Amino acid sequence: MLRNTDLLKEMLQRRQSGFSLEAGFYHSDDIFDAEMKGIFEYEWVFAGNICEIPRPGDYLTIIVGRNNVIVTRDDDDEVRAFHNTCRHRGSLICLEKRGHANQFVCPYHQWTYDRRGNLVHAGEMPASFDRSKFPLKPVNVEVMEGMMYVCVSDDPPDFQYFKEQVGPYIAPHQPWRCKVAYEETIVEDANWKLVIENNRECYHCACAHPELTYSLTATALPDDPQADAYFSEVMPSKARDWDALGLPHAPAPGGDKFRCIRLPFMNDALSMTLDGGLACRKLLGDLTDKDLGSVRMFHVPGNWNHFASDHIIHFSVVPISPEKTLLTTKWLVHEDAVEGWDYNAENLAAVWQATNHQDSTLARNNHLGTRSVAYQPGPYAEPEFLLVQFTDWYAGMMERYLASTDTCQSSGSAENDYSA
Amino acid sequence: MLRNTDLLKEMLQRRQSGFSLEAGFYHSDDIFDAEMKGIFEYEWVFAGNICEIPRPGDYLTIIVGRNNVIVTRDDDDEVRAFHNTCRHRGSLICLEKRGHANQFVCPYHQWTYDRRGNLVHAGEMPASFDRSKFPLKPVNVEVMEGMMYVCVSDDPPDFQYFKEQVGPYIAPHQPWRCKVAYEETIVEDANWKLVIENNRECYHCACAHPELTYSLTATALPDDPQADAYFSEVMPSKARDWDALGLPHAPAPGGDKFRCIRLPFMNDALSMTLDGGLACRKLLGDLTDKDLGSVRMFHVPGNWNHFASDHIIHFSVVPISPEKTLLTTKWLVHEDAVEGWDYNAENLAAVWQATNHQDSTLARNNHLGTRSVAYQPGPYAEPEFLLVQFTDWYAGMMERYLASTDTCQSSGSAENDYSA
Amino acid sequence: MLRNTDLLKEMLQRRQSGFSLEAGFYHSDDIFDAEMKGIFEYEWVFAGNICEIPRPGDYLTIIVGRNNVIVTRDDDDEVRAFHNTCRHRGSLICLEKRGHANQFVCPYHQWTYDRRGNLVHAGEMPASFDRSKFPLKPVNVEVMEGMMYVCVSDDPPDFQYFKEQVGPYIAPHQPWRCKVAYEETIVEDANWKLVIENNRECYHCACAHPELTYSLTATALPDDPQADAYFSEVMPSKARDWDALGLPHAPAPGGDKFRCIRLPFMNDALSMTLDGGLACRKLLGDLTDKDLGSVRMFHVPGNWNHFASDHIIHFSVVPISPEKTLLTTKWLVHEDAVEGWDYNAENLAAVWQATNHQDSTLARNNHLGTRSVAYQPGPYAEPEFLLVQFTDWYAGMMERYLASTDTCQSSGSAENDYSA
Repeated sequence: MLRNTDLLKEMLQRRQSGFSLEAGFYHSDDIFDAEMKGIFEYEWVFAGNICEIPRPGDYLTIIVGRNNVIVTRDDDDEVRAFHNTCRHRGSLICLEKRGHANQFVCPYHQWTYDRRGNLVHAGEMPASFDRSKFPLKPVNVEVMEGMMYVCVSDDPPDFQYFKEQVGPYIAPHQPWRCKVAYEETIVEDANWKLVIENNRECYHCACAHPELTYSLTATALPDDPQADAYFSEVMPSKARDWDALGLPHAPAPGGDKFRCIRLPFMNDALSMTLDGGLACRKLLGDLTDKDLGSVRMFHVPGNWNHFASDHIIHFSVVPISPEKTLLTTKWLVHEDAVEGWDYNAENLAAVWQATNHQDSTLARNNHLGTRSVAYQPGPYAEPEFLLVQFTDWYAGMMERYLASTDTCQSSGSAENDYSA
Repeated sequence: MLRNTDLLKEMLQRRQSGFSLEAGFYHSDDIFDAEMKGIFEYEWVFAGNICEIPRPGDYLTIIVGRNNVIVTRDDDDEVRAFHNTCRHRGSLICLEKRGHANQFVCPYHQWTYDRRGNLVHAGEMPASFDRSKFPLKPVNVEVMEGMMYVCVSDDPPDFQYFKEQVGPYIAPHQPWRCKVAYEETIVEDANWKLVIENNRECYHCACAHPELTYSLTATALPDDPQADAYFSEVMPSKARDWDALGLPHAPAPGGDKFRCIRLPFMNDALSMTLDGGLACRKLLGDLTDKDLGSVRMFHVPGNWNHFASDHIIHFSVVPISPEKTLLTTKWLVHEDAVEGWDYNAENLAAVWQATNHQDSTLARNNHLGTRSVAYQPGPYAEPEFLLVQFTDWYAGMMERYLASTDTCQSSGSAENDYSA
Repeated sequence: MLRNTDLLKEMLQRRQSGFSLEAGFYHSDDIFDAEMKGIFEYEWVFAGNICEIPRPGDYLTIIVGRNNVIVTRDDDDEVRAFHNTCRHRGSLICLEKRGHANQFVCPYHQWTYDRRGNLVHAGEMPASFDRSKFPLKPVNVEVMEGMMYVCVSDDPPDFQYFKEQVGPYIAPHQPWRCKVAYEETIVEDANWKLVIENNRECYHCACAHPELTYSLTATALPDDPQADAYFSEVMPSKARDWDALGLPHAPAPGGDKFRCIRLPFMNDALSMTLDGGLACRKLLGDLTDKDLGSVRMFHVPGNWNHFASDHIIHFSVVPISPEKTLLTTKWLVHEDAVEGWDYNAENLAAVWQATNHQDSTLARNNHLGTRSVAYQPGPYAEPEFLLVQFTDWYAGMMERYLASTDTCQSSGSAENDYSA
């Protein structure tokens, strides 16, 4: 429970939309704890691509707020997710990031769960022990065109609208028919919100990201009056091409929860590579047109993605503490693409590996600078309009969380200060 | 002082005996602090074997709760213990884990204390300074058959009953006539209680400890109806042998504070070695019978021991933070045993070195898993009956501590929030 | 804001002058936070020597309390200081310890400030944006004979008196005509006050510092009745020499805020070197007399200095946490001295490098020992009179800070718990 609920209320009240957040939001352990409860343990969190667990019993383990979660496929090929904590004394059950299990056997005392989470073995328990009362605790899971999202909340927010809106943009890329060609996780010395804020604007791109800006446009909207000559010329013709192919491209009505748009690349680039050429000769799904620009899609709180004609990139932000954040990036190509022939993993990952590391430095310096007592929220620039949206969304989530804890308290079920 | 006394009370009230503890007990800094005050600075804590300080002036330094303590032998061969903090400005005085001192000279300003803790030199103090008012602060110490225990409390709990009950079991092994042949300290990434819980059951042994289970039986009681065929056959005949030798073996009435029992080894093993053979050809004390199984003895909060015919192992658990615990293991053989002839240190330590590292992994995964919000206390299995006892004892100690702080507060002497 | 203002009040009330501080002062996060606000963000803090930034646009970055500060020279050669945090989203602007900038360009989004801190460029801001409202936040700066001090408080304490009193002692050494010949920063595992206390007495020198005590006298006052024979003989004759040269040497009336005195070296030493010989053949400024002993000058909270005929040493203490402190030491020689001919950097730094590392060990052991619950404030010895002064000053500063927060609270502008 927050030590100082009134203070958070004050901070939210004095917040000015259009300005960065005050320092406490980036550095307080208490607020970090509230964010885990009120955001990461409330929302749908990206868990991975279904192609990462092709067979029943394949699993991933991921971090969701303060929880470790197993995402697996049961014997009927249904995706299921469970809390990775044994019902006996709480040990982690699956210790690897990715694996395969006939059954989930706790390494401590061999309590054994089937692929639906049922406890099927627990040795030397008293006769009165009822195994059916001790299944793995389930976690909500949804799959959109192969992208798996989990929610550890008992009362998950709606997923359907997101699925309906975004599905048509990414379905042509057939994410479920991919394979992970390269993956990296980096540790960022910055608050997770600064990692997100860094991602949501390209105001910093021109100077910071020479590799990225060869292909990626800094322009975020098709009708941006400040777009450069190249973009202004290319956008309308691409839009016609994509309309002809039946590929949606206009901004999806995601409000502040998600974004989905298809935009052209710069410099006649076909993909996000150092030279703008394709990263993979085999195109995704059944695509035949190389020149599709890319679909950019994000979903709060920590997932963003790029879908080009030849590869997909999934990003996940995992907060560890107020000043430490993990960023996992996965590059996917068609499941039948052949390494060394169709693609080269190093080339595939080059642009965003460089970009991630550049962004990591920017976010760290941003984090360090906000520690100063002289720091005060500053105004966002026009190309940072998605940060206005992000901080407004964030404030709304924290207000919602505060309201929910007020209700808890008045009903007498005080939350546990020592719960984590 | 606990920030939230009411919450700890609630946690203790909702605790169910027979179930593991709720997460807060394993992860809270406040509760860790209360444990140091209410348990490790209240109870008798194992300090080492008197054979480690054979001569006057020899000393050990150990950690007891939040304190560093010197354990030494004075000029009359009496064991004495002192807080390792200079009465001048508080510097550590003895900087080594084990050493010899003619006098205890603070390395900072050479304030000098004799072996009884009296301040015998302090340079350039004003004439009014009375050295006799600044002795080293003494720590209570008791010795049982060479095993030294210290207590930093002003009002130490009874030690006599433990000494009387346990002495007869271990006296034949003559711990005081030993020497430390091997020693190691490992850092465990787990709460100290999870380290203890791991030690108090062998429900996990069959799968986790191939080296250990060759000799050590998982059966914890002589009359366990679930004991295997080997144990059931061997136990009664060993009991008769030990009776004939005058060696006590039945469980001592230690309640929840200590345990002492002699049990046979498995597989005709004589000692806890990889092949079951003796670890040391020279038996302990004046023993002539190799086949004595082992005495298992523990004393709350953090000491356990094994006494075989040929060697002794002392274990000490030292909590450092809610998630970091030191485990020191010392292997002792007869003081006259010759390395390379009677024993080989590597062979002597092999089984429990392997076991300690396996347990360290289990405890770490247990600790990590209990961080999940989905973790809830689970039921202990039948072979975990000593964990029921441990958690009941623990809850009692915390209740006692809460009651003692209530008294403090009502009498106006509020404890110091900033005291550590 | 302090979690427990009453407790700090109690701690200050029960403090006894002449005794070391109670443990909470050395180990509490809350009190550390109060010290940053009430001391390091209130007082004048040494920032470096003006010779380190010889040209307009040269800059240093330093840590002042919780802030990173840029110290630079503008186009009119005036020294200026700014908070190193961009007015846009707070990023650090200058990332190096020492550098040169034509303009201060934030590496994130290229907001650009001139050398007076004015915002001269911010791209893509709305038309309503007024750059003049977003200059770098200035920090107060004062220069005394080339020594730069900064103060981040809005209402800095007086600097003039210090400047007038101390200037005449150090002006003959012409600090501004120097260059940094060697520099090191070490991390001390001790509270900053223990680092200061260690520096303010030479009661520990005889046993701890063989290199230092060859030249440096442990005697701190010219008329110390306990001074040794050498000092008692040399002091009066040196005083006459210095009077003849017009060099002030008697203790300056610095009260508890600063100290300045010139004292002779031991063993006919001319400088603080291993053999007492000069560290630099070229004397400082226009000095011609080698035998000037040294001016010792400190200023609260964390700066001390030595001025010999041939070199100057500046020390700065930077608290990082209750148990971590940075100590930066800079050795300066005449700006025209030639390395390898006039001086050898290794030889120049040898004595105080050794001394710093010895002191670091002493301070760490002091810090560790005060963690014990048995530690209680002990009496200072006579040669520790400057520690009585230091702890009295410290208590006064904390009382002042408490009083200032009381005022804040009663006026309703509660300080922000999450402000750092």
